Amino acid sequence: MERLIEGYHQFRTSVFPNERETFARLASGQQPHTMFLTCADSRVMPELMLSAKPGEIFVYRNVGNIVPPYGQQVSGVVAAIEYAVKVLKVGHIVICGHSDCGAMKALQRPEALTELPSVRAWLKHAELAHYVYAEHRERSVEDKLRALTEENVIAQLEHLRTLPAVAAALANGALRIHGWIYDIEHGEITAYDGKKRSFRPLEQDGVQPEATPDARFPASAAA
Amino acid sequence: MERLIEGYHQFRTSVFPNERETFARLASGQQPHTMFLTCADSRVMPELMLSAKPGEIFVYRNVGNIVPPYGQQVSGVVAAIEYAVKVLKVGHIVICGHSDCGAMKALQRPEALTELPSVRAWLKHAELAHYVYAEHRERSVEDKLRALTEENVIAQLEHLRTLPAVAAALANGALRIHGWIYDIEHGEITAYDGKKRSFRPLEQDGVQPEATPDARFPASAAA
Amino acid sequence: MERLIEGYHQFRTSVFPNERETFARLASGQQPHTMFLTCADSRVMPELMLSAKPGEIFVYRNVGNIVPPYGQQVSGVVAAIEYAVKVLKVGHIVICGHSDCGAMKALQRPEALTELPSVRAWLKHAELAHYVYAEHRERSVEDKLRALTEENVIAQLEHLRTLPAVAAALANGALRIHGWIYDIEHGEITAYDGKKRSFRPLEQDGVQPEATPDARFPASAAA
Amino acid sequence: MERLIEGYHQFRTSVFPNERETFARLASGQQPHTMFLTCADSRVMPELMLSAKPGEIFVYRNVGNIVPPYGQQVSGVVAAIEYAVKVLKVGHIVICGHSDCGAMKALQRPEALTELPSVRAWLKHAELAHYVYAEHRERSVEDKLRALTEENVIAQLEHLRTLPAVAAALANGALRIHGWIYDIEHGEITAYDGKKRSFRPLEQDGVQPEATPDARFPASAAA
Repeated sequence: MERLIEGYHQFRTSVFPNERETFARLASGQQPHTMFLTCADSRVMPELMLSAKPGEIFVYRNVGNIVPPYGQQVSGVVAAIEYAVKVLKVGHIVICGHSDCGAMKALQRPEALTELPSVRAWLKHAELAHYVYAEHRERSVEDKLRALTEENVIAQLEHLRTLPAVAAALANGALRIHGWIYDIEHGEITAYDGKKRSFRPLEQDGVQPEATPDARFPASAAA
Repeated sequence: MERLIEGYHQFRTSVFPNERETFARLASGQQPHTMFLTCADSRVMPELMLSAKPGEIFVYRNVGNIVPPYGQQVSGVVAAIEYAVKVLKVGHIVICGHSDCGAMKALQRPEALTELPSVRAWLKHAELAHYVYAEHRERSVEDKLRALTEENVIAQLEHLRTLPAVAAALANGALRIHGWIYDIEHGEITAYDGKKRSFRPLEQDGVQPEATPDARFPASAAA
Repeated sequence: MERLIEGYHQFRTSVFPNERETFARLASGQQPHTMFLTCADSRVMPELMLSAKPGEIFVYRNVGNIVPPYGQQVSGVVAAIEYAVKVLKVGHIVICGHSDCGAMKALQRPEALTELPSVRAWLKHAELAHYVYAEHRERSVEDKLRALTEENVIAQLEHLRTLPAVAAALANGALRIHGWIYDIEHGEITAYDGKKRSFRPLEQDGVQPEATPDARFPASAAA
Repeated sequence: MERLIEGYHQFRTSVFPNERETFARLASGQQPHTMFLTCADSRVMPELMLSAKPGEIFVYRNVGNIVPPYGQQVSGVVAAIEYAVKVLKVGHIVICGHSDCGAMKALQRPEALTELPSVRAWLKHAELAHYVYAEHRERSVEDKLRALTEENVIAQLEHLRTLPAVAAALANGALRIHGWIYDIEHGEITAYDGKKRSFRPLEQDGVQPEATPDARFPASAAA
């Protein structure tokens, strides 16, 4: 904790003064273009790995970068996405998993969850990934973990599509959704290509892989 | 989105190479000392404002830095805290609100939530703050927003104490909990002092304000 | 009620004797090839409109032919589908909406639901359809109702894909899913074509429209 | 599936033409006199076994002909019954179990449910039956299954009485409720007699067994 308080004073003296104008401008409102949903893991640092500036990304973080599907019981994720899409009007939602994820490893060894009833209940929202993953024919332990992590991102994209606000924005072309995985060791991001059904590196140039199918009733088409 | 992909490549070329060893060391495990629970707001950047290094803080973010109390339906927050306390064994949990919070402003004008059914349902977990705040006698609009933001941090600390894993770790002295508010415009943090029942600036030296009451059965006392 | 008891005796004397052997054979087990999920509406008669024999179709019926997505709270639909896919090993699931559906009409006039709190809560599972439908540019009342009914079938197919047992069976090619709409007045069925994103008549010959994307890891491919 | 599509075309050519007027008349509304709640089992065919005509019975089907009691989380059954009683104003609700029911057999061998988490969760609503049944002193396996099936119908009638809309309609005499069991092998229905607390054959003439206690405040009495 002392480390963090020192870090805060370092921020106050070395970082903040240079960004004073930015923060003053942002003091009364935010207009992020992207919602970034990732894991709470301490090694994943969204703003750092995207060199994002204050005000750019609306960041939701939980265990396992999970989006519970829309239901009678409202989750924090569902509320945040409704806010991002309908109030902030973000144009993109990224669901970003990562290597060596504790939640994914727990899914592989359910017996480890005996003493963690709340984590076990929460990971029910990752069962979709786990069942599909069980159909895989991967060999090594590492390959298996990678496969499950990929299936989880794909599954959460499926859940995302069950949110009414998301489905409407996808249908009229106002929103695009993305599924990424961040490799901690190599600092590398791969993105899900919905057409090819596979992940490939996020490239600087060229067409980016997209998880979103085409809009069904693009607003522009009505004009 | 192009901005973020550029930002990612900037990270890959300018930042990652200098931290390669850190990330390689962290590739197979995390040992954060603190769980930091804050708002998804794009202007709040936990790692930046605490100069935190990869692996240091386990970061949960949702709308309004809310901790639903422990109940039959398990929320993502409750699962994450259980994981942080029982598996990662963090020594601190910080709940950090911030100035100009959209969730707090929405609480003040419930009519704005008519078209946002999920946000409205989620903010039910901030009603505790809203009811207490209604007893306040603040004058200006700004003071009112500040008062509600403070009450919300205090209310979420109360909810935090309803989690069995937290209550147990508090009782045996393994955990301390903190309530902070980050002022976006001035880059300043104030912390809740549970004894004085007020917020005061987080200072570099001297005794820090604490929200935690003393441990009831400190493990050390058993020795 | 007297009508039904008379009807039962008519069945006992005129229908049952001719099917005695079929029923005796079925007395100790069922092996339906298809799960048929449709509305409770009294004008929809699945076995009649498909000339299905006893033992052929496992029939789930509720208000609005709805499949709540997979979540912590288990619904009857989710339990039934798990049973159909994992125990009965059905090869097909059909979600069948219909014309003049009271649930769809209620969605269009939410004020009609004020006195029906449970129906309103249940129809939350059709909000996905309602939001996407709001992006449509249909003209007449009839067209609107048809559009909403179609969107609801598509939305429930989305929900269906969030069920782990369904996703796994789709991935390995053991299951195919279908979205149909039955027109009461004309006794006609149209089926959703997932590739063309539209409904077309169910034809006797030729390739049938399918809602299912191709299997990702067909079991046969592993051989 | 080909069988069903053939069956559909058979319906279109041989059945529908003779009922064209009935279906045209029903195209814009239903007025069923009875709600029939039974199991999804493929061998139970409500319209066939009651010789019911289109528009006569509102048919709800799930696994085990279960009615979850009224609670915070709204089930599809509760919504459907509210709709049937308050909008369709049905005069009767029949809960109909059947012989060789997979759900009842699963209740007897809970170990069979290990791989079926959703079915297990759903059958929690049949625990009422299971506990009462455990007090029985039946001898053969067949007798036991019959006893459990009967207890389940009785238990679901109890749950039915916990629905506010049902309780109100029972109190004013607008609704009567019935508990039946259909024997697949013999095509025979027995009905629960609430006064004698036993099941007996549904007869064509004479007073039918009734599960409903007398109305408390019959509307007619007010006249």
